[in-house]
Amino acid sequence: MANLRHNPASIAAPTNNLYAHGVEVPAGGRHLYVAGQVGTRPDGSIAPDVPGQVEQIMANIEAILGEAGMGFGDVVKITAYCLKAEDIFTYAGIRNRHFAGSPPATTAVVVAGLADPRWLVEVDVVAARAGD
Amino acid sequence: MANLRHNPASIAAPTNNLYAHGVEVPAGGRHLYVAGQVGTRPDGSIAPDVPGQVEQIMANIEAILGEAGMGFGDVVKITAYCLKAEDIFTYAGIRNRHFAGSPPATTAVVVAGLADPRWLVEVDVVAARAGD
Amino acid sequence: MANLRHNPASIAAPTNNLYAHGVEVPAGGRHLYVAGQVGTRPDGSIAPDVPGQVEQIMANIEAILGEAGMGFGDVVKITAYCLKAEDIFTYAGIRNRHFAGSPPATTAVVVAGLADPRWLVEVDVVAARAGD
Repeated sequence: MANLRHNPASIAAPTNNLYAHGVEVPAGGRHLYVAGQVGTRPDGSIAPDVPGQVEQIMANIEAILGEAGMGFGDVVKITAYCLKAEDIFTYAGIRNRHFAGSPPATTAVVVAGLADPRWLVEVDVVAARAGD
Repeated sequence: MANLRHNPASIAAPTNNLYAHGVEVPAGGRHLYVAGQVGTRPDGSIAPDVPGQVEQIMANIEAILGEAGMGFGDVVKITAYCLKAEDIFTYAGIRNRHFAGSPPATTAVVVAGLADPRWLVEVDVVAARAGD
Repeated sequence: MANLRHNPASIAAPTNNLYAHGVEVPAGGRHLYVAGQVGTRPDGSIAPDVPGQVEQIMANIEAILGEAGMGFGDVVKITAYCLKAEDIFTYAGIRNRHFAGSPPATTAVVVAGLADPRWLVEVDVVAARAGD
């Protein structure tokens, strides 16, 4: 049974339907918790700007989901920690390309810093899929 | 089977029992992930102050829970991102009215900003209920 | 069935394998949501520095897990909110001692404040264990 998206007509709709107000995981789902991902490349270097870091983050998330037999369509929640408010829009633009048709519930905030001063964005997700 | 609240006697109790240290979802639960809610009204305008935004946020959350056949009593975790420490207390006062008798696990932090400068609080929740 | 850890070979490995990129909870798990813990001692006093607060936080988490018949090995996600970037390393050093062999997925960010000015760190966790 697939995850269900809930967007009540009685409240303001998600902007351009690019996220879901609520995503429900039916009973019997497997849940995957993904650690905060940053823009570190496989060779250990770090992408130098926000778009590059977000692209690397999405590649990391896709690889981790894949190891669990899941994909972006199974992501139920995505949380982003950015250093500037305008970076949230850069992040969201790249993120939305990966979730066409199956948007997750989202949270995005501006934090005062991350563990490494070269990191400009950190993103974690929860995914779930029927436990077959 | 209902969610279970855990407050060990060996550690400091939750202040006035207004939240739970731990909330357990038994096997077989449906889980609902709610996106970060803000004080946007159904007509697209934004409530101008913290109390007004929190009231709108709680109304949004109630509507989203309702679409999934859930209510405030099914909320297991609530996380608030405020712009000032004193706003956490304003938020908590309004929040607590909705959870009398069934407090969730809570986290509340002060962030450096949110995506829209008019937003003063963002709140997301996880809820769960037996999968009947 | 135990929780599964996923660390794809195609992306940069977790630093010293001290956390897991992804932790999967098989279908049928019980989930435990733990509220943001702070350095408040059982007598209501607050540990005065970051190491003391983190030690108290880990003791609180252990007590809450214990009430649900769980332990550190069942933690799937741990999120830390610190006031300074360097405090993330102090926190991680203490945290890692509790998770040898069974690292959780982690997120750690620097926030602009917490509800009480004496609090220097707040940490919440999600744990899960087969629902037997």
